Amino acid sequence: MFKLYEFSASGNCYKIRLLLTQLEIPFERIEIDIIKGESRTPEFLQKNLNGRIPVLEIEPGKYLPESNAILFYLSEGTKFFPTDRWEKAQVMQWLFFEQYSHEPYIATSRYWISILGKVEEYQAEIQQKQPGGYAALAVMEKHLENHQFFVGDRYSIADICLFAYTHVADEGGFNLQLFPAIQNWLERIKNQPLYTSM
Amino acid sequence: MFKLYEFSASGNCYKIRLLLTQLEIPFERIEIDIIKGESRTPEFLQKNLNGRIPVLEIEPGKYLPESNAILFYLSEGTKFFPTDRWEKAQVMQWLFFEQYSHEPYIATSRYWISILGKVEEYQAEIQQKQPGGYAALAVMEKHLENHQFFVGDRYSIADICLFAYTHVADEGGFNLQLFPAIQNWLERIKNQPLYTSM
Repeated sequence: MFKLYEFSASGNCYKIRLLLTQLEIPFERIEIDIIKGESRTPEFLQKNLNGRIPVLEIEPGKYLPESNAILFYLSEGTKFFPTDRWEKAQVMQWLFFEQYSHEPYIATSRYWISILGKVEEYQAEIQQKQPGGYAALAVMEKHLENHQFFVGDRYSIADICLFAYTHVADEGGFNLQLFPAIQNWLERIKNQPLYTSM
Repeated sequence: MFKLYEFSASGNCYKIRLLLTQLEIPFERIEIDIIKGESRTPEFLQKNLNGRIPVLEIEPGKYLPESNAILFYLSEGTKFFPTDRWEKAQVMQWLFFEQYSHEPYIATSRYWISILGKVEEYQAEIQQKQPGGYAALAVMEKHLENHQFFVGDRYSIADICLFAYTHVADEGGFNLQLFPAIQNWLERIKNQPLYTSM
């Protein structure tokens, strides 16, 4: 059985739980408290040299880090990943967009505000993250004005990936009321078969 | 013919040139001066809503952004991307590692220091980027102590992707002399057939 090394409150880890649940693949959850430094112990660094969660243990001793690499690994050959070459490339485009232009702003702000609860201490950093986070949301909004889902008008790992931190963006200090197309898309995701909440 | 919208000095754009050259696929280069804001014009935003380079125009009107999505698109089905499921996942792992844990530190510092030439103005930001950049290099060094290449002991887009900014990390203020395994790997990359410099 797959083992998911995760920090439950992390959107990157939730992505994997949502996909595994929708694939009806059973898995064991192992909590790694990143606040206590449990992802940086010598033991954990054997699983991921980069000291980050999530890590999926595919079989004993075979570890896969990077949330979006895990999504790709699990979804290829299923209905959650396209087979058309151009659509595959577009899924990848949104996965890299999420890790480079979205997560570092929205997830990081949420971590300071809602996970650590240190909004005062990180006031300056949180302010610095606002323009980048809103820019990412604006890109998504513009795309969703003409699309039901991110790629091929079908629910895919591109949607799962972007849903994870977008649906809790308010916990990072971002106002989703400004983005009606995103809000409608969030509802479409929540209505997918076997949807499971964070 | 493919059109590559690029800023020549960018490592993210160089990745694509290196792969296209090694695939012996001809392409047209179109320079977009990001310093002058040419990637944020209304015209360019039609090609990439996110206002970034590189963008590959695959056929007229069909645009693919995100350097690592482009690498994936071009390499699948070639010797530069594996066919084994576990190796494919590992390539993806390193591609996401590069965009999240490597590029934001090493490429960004290089941009301030060597592209903009504003080392004084960005002194504080450059200092802040040092630990993250060295952490990424340490992860690579540790992996390369036991591997010739990043995945499957064969040259792949995982190597191309990580080579782009690593081989010019000194231009971002990082001392590669501390990483002998990385230095040997850089030489192996430069000795690949049809290698082309930045």
